[in-house]
Amino acid sequence: MSDQVIGIIAGILTSASTLPQLIKTIKKKEASDLSAYIFIMLIVGTGLWVYYGVLKDDIPIIATNSFSVLLNVIGLFLKFKYSPKEEMLS
Amino acid sequence: MSDQVIGIIAGILTSASTLPQLIKTIKKKEASDLSAYIFIMLIVGTGLWVYYGVLKDDIPIIATNSFSVLLNVIGLFLKFKYSPKEEMLS
Repeated sequence: MSDQVIGIIAGILTSASTLPQLIKTIKKKEASDLSAYIFIMLIVGTGLWVYYGVLKDDIPIIATNSFSVLLNVIGLFLKFKYSPKEEMLS
Repeated sequence: MSDQVIGIIAGILTSASTLPQLIKTIKKKEASDLSAYIFIMLIVGTGLWVYYGVLKDDIPIIATNSFSVLLNVIGLFLKFKYSPKEEMLS
């Protein structure tokens, strides 16, 4: 198996781990068990991984972390959409 | 900033995002909101990232994903320790 295939599989598994939580939040229209801080941390972290991938010219890192950035931005959006105002940053 | 420093910061942010959930589980001694499947997915995914890092001789990927493997193994252990038997794989 080529290095790239291993990187892509690794990235799909780690990125997709966010999906069940997002699906649950959309179904329940309820986000009080999500943390805005963690999404912000993950957006910065996966964003830096994308930048690292660009520096290293590494396609699996760029592709799968771009997908993660997107999922975490959606997560943060859902947090603000479905949380009562007073617990928005809890 | 060197590539390695960017990779290490990216990896610390993404790995450490698991910590609040683990700390909450240990404090509450309750794991029904955790998913064993997601921990297994993350153990395989971050394990493959470690392997990818070894293939690419990439220290930030190896170091930070090894830390993630450890945190997710701890998460899976907590899931089995603090879940009632009937919901162990829910």
